[in-house]
Amino acid sequence: MPLNVRAAIVHAPNEPFAIETVQLEGPREGEVLIHVKATGLCHSDLHVYEGKVPWQFPALLGHEAAGVVVEVGPGVTKFKPGDHVIPFLIPQCGKCNYCASNKTNLCVEAFARLRPRESRFSLDGKPVTQLWGLGTFADYTVLPIDTIAKVRDDAPFDPICYIGCGATTGIGAALFAAKIEAGDSVIVFGLGGIGLNVVQGAKLAGAKTIIGVDMNPAKEQIARQFGATEFVNPKQVEKIVPHLLKLTGGGADYTFECIGIPQVMRQAFECTNPAWGKSYVIGVAPQGSEVNAIPGMLMMGRHWTGCYMGGARVSRLPEIVDWYVEGKIHLDPLVTHRLPLERIGEGFRMMQTGESIRTVVVM
Amino acid sequence: MPLNVRAAIVHAPNEPFAIETVQLEGPREGEVLIHVKATGLCHSDLHVYEGKVPWQFPALLGHEAAGVVVEVGPGVTKFKPGDHVIPFLIPQCGKCNYCASNKTNLCVEAFARLRPRESRFSLDGKPVTQLWGLGTFADYTVLPIDTIAKVRDDAPFDPICYIGCGATTGIGAALFAAKIEAGDSVIVFGLGGIGLNVVQGAKLAGAKTIIGVDMNPAKEQIARQFGATEFVNPKQVEKIVPHLLKLTGGGADYTFECIGIPQVMRQAFECTNPAWGKSYVIGVAPQGSEVNAIPGMLMMGRHWTGCYMGGARVSRLPEIVDWYVEGKIHLDPLVTHRLPLERIGEGFRMMQTGESIRTVVVM
Repeated sequence: MPLNVRAAIVHAPNEPFAIETVQLEGPREGEVLIHVKATGLCHSDLHVYEGKVPWQFPALLGHEAAGVVVEVGPGVTKFKPGDHVIPFLIPQCGKCNYCASNKTNLCVEAFARLRPRESRFSLDGKPVTQLWGLGTFADYTVLPIDTIAKVRDDAPFDPICYIGCGATTGIGAALFAAKIEAGDSVIVFGLGGIGLNVVQGAKLAGAKTIIGVDMNPAKEQIARQFGATEFVNPKQVEKIVPHLLKLTGGGADYTFECIGIPQVMRQAFECTNPAWGKSYVIGVAPQGSEVNAIPGMLMMGRHWTGCYMGGARVSRLPEIVDWYVEGKIHLDPLVTHRLPLERIGEGFRMMQTGESIRTVVVM
Repeated sequence: MPLNVRAAIVHAPNEPFAIETVQLEGPREGEVLIHVKATGLCHSDLHVYEGKVPWQFPALLGHEAAGVVVEVGPGVTKFKPGDHVIPFLIPQCGKCNYCASNKTNLCVEAFARLRPRESRFSLDGKPVTQLWGLGTFADYTVLPIDTIAKVRDDAPFDPICYIGCGATTGIGAALFAAKIEAGDSVIVFGLGGIGLNVVQGAKLAGAKTIIGVDMNPAKEQIARQFGATEFVNPKQVEKIVPHLLKLTGGGADYTFECIGIPQVMRQAFECTNPAWGKSYVIGVAPQGSEVNAIPGMLMMGRHWTGCYMGGARVSRLPEIVDWYVEGKIHLDPLVTHRLPLERIGEGFRMMQTGESIRTVVVM
């Protein structure tokens, strides 16, 4: 018998969320049924909601969550009812070349799930897609076990749901992708939810110089709280690149673009040390846009690269939860709003206006 | 008393080489006097000759050479008369942050020498500049000791002079910069003197797949001789990027652009493995040109980078000379022409027409 589940459904791009009772099939082999306890609203959800990223509707969006395993499918031994878990956009199938290598956190299955898989949800007998194989804007969801991490059960679901995407994307970029070392210099462009997490990741790594760059002067205080040693407002300097090159004594060891603006990506690239600086593209640029640079700026040894989900594999999530519980990283100041599922639309509106850093829907 | 030295002088861009007797001061502290035995003609010399790279004339060009130490300046103990040596465009001052790091082969002093230093050469009392601190188109030259490597004395000056620039730029890119490992896949765009050396560097590293790409079908034979496992002529495939992605099962571990065409740099970048591929810009693009790419192609973990002089420090040159003597690398098939100093202009003409791979002036 399918479970009746309360879910926030989007029937077509930009239509209001409909809080409906949908039918959820139980877990099959290799799957578990999860009671979702908290789920964050991420800009990636917003892009799909607004139709900027193609997806099939009606859809259950949501991918940043924490919850409890309620039931396991046939043959599942890795999880048991009562386990606290966090889903992650990148599964680890354990079989592909990517999983087999130690060179990437990607899994070929992650690409497959960018297209709707067979959903366990339905409404009046018609399927409701689960965004990117997940779909967490519901009281319950069914997920494949290769895409969830078991975490300690003394960590509060709100805010650790944030570790399922935003926090890990930033912290991981600094620690797992860039592998910042003690004494390094770092510049972070854009101090939103991702950028501030890069800042605290850099601090955790022991970076000596951490320069936060943002056009909003109100970001200085929280940037410094998260570990920034300096704050630069591009509006207040004549030319941002020469200014940052001077501040870092000729270019930073690492720079991170956390906004998604190609012009800023170029600035971030040009602000690296010419011989060994590495610039990470994290922000998602609009479709059809291009970045450009002078070839000679690559030739001396600069690296232009990027990372997806902070270069983290799903297996690293428990460690980040530990860091939060042990007080090594901050998450609470980033969760600026909390809402019940019925008011999820308000949370999306606040993302559109930029009022929130992170809104968490608490079930 | 200054030494009278036979030299090929360029009085102004594009003017014929003048074989003249110039005056050379003896070595000062930290310098040595070298009898040049063989010197290669490099495209970088050609760019300066044609006025495409700014320089001060009259000038003694030439930077790819091998010779013998004749006299050492006061206090010099690292070299003695009779030592066989190769100069290198990147010195190692041993004092700067770059030299102190293990992250780069660059030295701050290398940038300083892009401007004319005080020359030891003069003609009728007026200074003749030494290109980039070297200047090897003469029977003798005086060089700082931080910019020369002592090599074994049983290696023939022709062709090991080629190790002073072109050979090392290619072989080093594969071995020292990219650090290719056994089993890796590699694509090399442009099979001139640099590209063929990348090919043999990749072979030396044990790469499993080495794809050479060139529009000249005559390059297939030598590419295979140097280690290419496949040859692709872009004129003979519909779309080069999808073709190479297919050939490499989704993208190469490493790609190298050895031509200097921004559009090819983009192709080379796009042909890498999306998750961990690294693309090296080696070719020198025309001033004012730009490369561009889709930001999302960086985000999954590709690296776009480059290297100068193969990522080699001057101290690595003796090892490459050993490889040549031991038969691990080929140089002889690349030296397509040999000329006396008086006919150096013919060598430059052959670079302009593309008739030669490498011309060596034998003194």
